[in-house]
Amino acid sequence: MSLFIKDYCIEEFEKRGVTLDDMAELLLLIQQKHSPDLTIEAAKKHILKVFEKREVQNVVLTGLTLDKMAENHTLDEPLHSLMWNDDSLYGVDEVLAYGIANIYGSIGLTNFGYLDKAKPGIIGKVNDKHDGKVNTFLDDLISAVVAAAASRVAHRKRDGYHILDVD
Amino acid sequence: MSLFIKDYCIEEFEKRGVTLDDMAELLLLIQQKHSPDLTIEAAKKHILKVFEKREVQNVVLTGLTLDKMAENHTLDEPLHSLMWNDDSLYGVDEVLAYGIANIYGSIGLTNFGYLDKAKPGIIGKVNDKHDGKVNTFLDDLISAVVAAAASRVAHRKRDGYHILDVD
Amino acid sequence: MSLFIKDYCIEEFEKRGVTLDDMAELLLLIQQKHSPDLTIEAAKKHILKVFEKREVQNVVLTGLTLDKMAENHTLDEPLHSLMWNDDSLYGVDEVLAYGIANIYGSIGLTNFGYLDKAKPGIIGKVNDKHDGKVNTFLDDLISAVVAAAASRVAHRKRDGYHILDVD
Amino acid sequence: MSLFIKDYCIEEFEKRGVTLDDMAELLLLIQQKHSPDLTIEAAKKHILKVFEKREVQNVVLTGLTLDKMAENHTLDEPLHSLMWNDDSLYGVDEVLAYGIANIYGSIGLTNFGYLDKAKPGIIGKVNDKHDGKVNTFLDDLISAVVAAAASRVAHRKRDGYHILDVD
Repeated sequence: MSLFIKDYCIEEFEKRGVTLDDMAELLLLIQQKHSPDLTIEAAKKHILKVFEKREVQNVVLTGLTLDKMAENHTLDEPLHSLMWNDDSLYGVDEVLAYGIANIYGSIGLTNFGYLDKAKPGIIGKVNDKHDGKVNTFLDDLISAVVAAAASRVAHRKRDGYHILDVD
Repeated sequence: MSLFIKDYCIEEFEKRGVTLDDMAELLLLIQQKHSPDLTIEAAKKHILKVFEKREVQNVVLTGLTLDKMAENHTLDEPLHSLMWNDDSLYGVDEVLAYGIANIYGSIGLTNFGYLDKAKPGIIGKVNDKHDGKVNTFLDDLISAVVAAAASRVAHRKRDGYHILDVD
Repeated sequence: MSLFIKDYCIEEFEKRGVTLDDMAELLLLIQQKHSPDLTIEAAKKHILKVFEKREVQNVVLTGLTLDKMAENHTLDEPLHSLMWNDDSLYGVDEVLAYGIANIYGSIGLTNFGYLDKAKPGIIGKVNDKHDGKVNTFLDDLISAVVAAAASRVAHRKRDGYHILDVD
Repeated sequence: MSLFIKDYCIEEFEKRGVTLDDMAELLLLIQQKHSPDLTIEAAKKHILKVFEKREVQNVVLTGLTLDKMAENHTLDEPLHSLMWNDDSLYGVDEVLAYGIANIYGSIGLTNFGYLDKAKPGIIGKVNDKHDGKVNTFLDDLISAVVAAAASRVAHRKRDGYHILDVD
């Protein structure tokens, strides 16, 4: 893993208005039924662990760069128009997110789809685009990272780790 | 495609309490925002088209057989116990469903996850197990078939087909 | 599907030195055992059919744009360096290719991996980078399109179509 | 993870003629270019680590059970006939294998496909069926486990671990 790229990804999320706290709250939301003892602090640490995975970093980096370049009108055509107009049949964001969601196993797929469709919390906010923002990949990346973290929590719980023991 | 296996799959769904109408209603539910003119009759035809795909048939057949054999105690151990106890970390049902959900493209992933988690309509009913029923794969199969049908509707609409033109 | 984007994708492949004939030859290579009667002309038509799929077009467009922008030094950092240096652990090209390879069903996965690793014909040529070319995505895209076409041939053959009947 | 199921999976592989040494040799084969210092002992340990993953265990268990029951004629129809005749368009084995191959990231996909198609070593042997053996899933499972182990080796090498340091 690259700590440089890990930090870069988290900073880029923050620049686009998505904090670790926002993602930790989503994790609590989808885990509250299965892991009611999970705290916001532990949730943040689980999310950070997901960002340490090289596979996650590469997917996040690629998706965020595409969003940012579409937003800055520096992406080549015709991809720029496709992303700028947020074509509902452009599914590359889902393809990429899948590369993240199942890094901790296939149970992440269900949570990914749920978050991406129901759009609770920060996901709804970034999806409510305005002022020339392009978040085509961002909402899928958030959903996928949180879904991966949820799988991490579930598998570790079964493995006998205490819910607040993250490392 | 095999019409024999197509019919077999639909009959097996019905034997387990899941009709084409049940699935068509789910399709209307997730498509109502994008395709408000879709009728229950057209929805059923789209679902039938999905069942014509050999890939879908093979996945459905495999999943339903595993459910049925677990229910009848004819599946070998230790797989029987894993399925009988409905282990929440057994994710092979999601892996299989993925083989269906994206047969019409990656946008199916989001609808699959949403249906599988929110469990509207018939999905909630089959998931509410009792009397020794095993529906480990069934709920994922329903979600995946309906999600595939939704992708089919969306792609065909963009391709200029009338919403009630299914073939 | 968009005929404009279909033509654009094929032209971009040609600009990067990959013709429909190159891909048709790969298709003959991997199908010769199962479909010895397949001709180069029919193979080209099957490949064209794959390029008509919107999902394929979107993935191809995204991958080719990333390659081209990395090559022209117009991609933002740090993604540019990652692609410029052709990091062997950057797996987003495989993630994207997967979105193509199984559009005709999961049997495409095996052919995709084989082509991408053995690198016969044109795949080996584009992979043998020099003169500042960046083909990080291109070789995976070729492998995935040909693998999808091979699945198309196999499924249609079973469905009773004549090997030279493509539409 | 379950050590019981881990051991069960390895024993079942052995009963079907596939030893850890067989798989370790395949790992050396596909890693020799990138990691020439990898030994057979270290390769075996990497393979064992892959078998510790719950996701891998569940997929292996499901696939092996289906093979064994098809072989013993205890699987329900029509799935039995489909597997018994080793239908080349039955792609559920590839779908399942995918659930293993990318557990260590998407670079596993390429190695999976290569092994599954080129069939070196033990994979060719189990695929050369005779005497009523059914290995529909087994060859894909071997390919996927070895491909996952190869990704594990590659990612750990980049992370600075010594090639013989497995834990």
